[in-house]
Amino acid sequence: MKELVIVKIGGNVIDDKEALRSFLSDFAAIKSPKILVHGGGKLATELSAKLGIETKMVDGRRITDEATLQVVTMTYAGWINKTIVAQLQSLGCNALGITGADGGAITAVKRQVAAIDYGFVGDVNRESVNTGFLSTILDTDMALIVAPIAADAGGTLLNVNADTMARVVTEALNSTYSTSLIYCFEKAGLLSNVEEDNSVISTLNISEVDMLKSNGTISKGMIPKVDNALKAKQSGAASVVIGHAKDLIKLVNNQQGYGTSIAG
Amino acid sequence: MKELVIVKIGGNVIDDKEALRSFLSDFAAIKSPKILVHGGGKLATELSAKLGIETKMVDGRRITDEATLQVVTMTYAGWINKTIVAQLQSLGCNALGITGADGGAITAVKRQVAAIDYGFVGDVNRESVNTGFLSTILDTDMALIVAPIAADAGGTLLNVNADTMARVVTEALNSTYSTSLIYCFEKAGLLSNVEEDNSVISTLNISEVDMLKSNGTISKGMIPKVDNALKAKQSGAASVVIGHAKDLIKLVNNQQGYGTSIAG
Repeated sequence: MKELVIVKIGGNVIDDKEALRSFLSDFAAIKSPKILVHGGGKLATELSAKLGIETKMVDGRRITDEATLQVVTMTYAGWINKTIVAQLQSLGCNALGITGADGGAITAVKRQVAAIDYGFVGDVNRESVNTGFLSTILDTDMALIVAPIAADAGGTLLNVNADTMARVVTEALNSTYSTSLIYCFEKAGLLSNVEEDNSVISTLNISEVDMLKSNGTISKGMIPKVDNALKAKQSGAASVVIGHAKDLIKLVNNQQGYGTSIAG
Repeated sequence: MKELVIVKIGGNVIDDKEALRSFLSDFAAIKSPKILVHGGGKLATELSAKLGIETKMVDGRRITDEATLQVVTMTYAGWINKTIVAQLQSLGCNALGITGADGGAITAVKRQVAAIDYGFVGDVNRESVNTGFLSTILDTDMALIVAPIAADAGGTLLNVNADTMARVVTEALNSTYSTSLIYCFEKAGLLSNVEEDNSVISTLNISEVDMLKSNGTISKGMIPKVDNALKAKQSGAASVVIGHAKDLIKLVNNQQGYGTSIAG
């Protein structure tokens, strides 16, 4: 089966011009078909603040009212996505920037109002993904750059979690490609001691996850990341790794000593 | 030759939710391959004002400093492009939203500083257009929705005039398709008397243009629109029409009594 590399990159790298350029240079060098799912970084929060739109977070998740939806669509799908695409083009990497709405790539469902009304937030799963469209583009040797925005069947734009988006794309493409999913962030991997950058757990076995959650090793923002990583691995991804954005090439090559690999 | 319809839509329709929905419903109904190039509307100016960025216009053209570039990229390529794409998808029209940077579709050159420094403004011509990419997408039965943003070879994003973008795309695709270019705006066509909405000049002959410019019939914002329309016709477009956005279907069908047709 053809290989496919799916990379998720978080806000910290996006906020740092030099780090982003270096990361994109590494991404451009990946030879196989590839998809980059990017988050938002501080730009949306900063823009909201300048516009007097209050940023409401519940459990680390942004509540997306109409004004906030406009801000995140502008920043994620507009400035960040196009900045990345233009830089990749200049690096000789042919790239196409999309949201879930484009080509009907990923159709979301507006999250039902339960205890919390998240507003214009979309949920996605592997059935949301239009694998035909993604494969068509990948077959033309273009890299897909995916902003975490999608639309529902009625044409309403929705804010989607980028970690989840990367996972469902992986799940959906597992039957067509041998997929490697790489979550890049600002740490070298899952740390056994959060204070110690060199305490990376090199292999995370699914059987250990509950224990590591209960003892606090996996906490806060790492919980959804690890959960998404596990689901991707269990769905049949060839490789799932969590690691530092600056180590992208080593993570792609599964080089010993870099990142946390998920063992099935 | 296969037919291709290229529609340019201006800001007035984009600013009006109901008019936009009606226009997109008409656009979705066009059966041939199709491209929609959209302008920006008031959103960029409003957002600039809220952010305290001064909007500088010279001869009706926006001076694009770095802050303004970010605003127009966010609004044109982010909010407006994705709003259009999501609505078209909900209308059953498979659409892909792009800037010139995506797929290397249209590569611009930063305008040289002469008497006026326009800032991050890009110039394009027919050689700027990657016809292979556009044809590949059109062949998959997706409509292309083009925001008037491009990048130069160095990866710098640039603001591009949407009328010009529609024209150069037409020029570049004339040899592959039988092209119809339709400039939609808020008037029924080129008016012989600007005060009289029913004074539409049904056919504009190239030989008459200089005279109509000197007597003021073609003035202000109509000058670049007519110039672009003429160039497109002279480059071999099968049909070039200027007319009202609400008449889109009639303009596509070259229905007698609607819009101003350019005669070669």
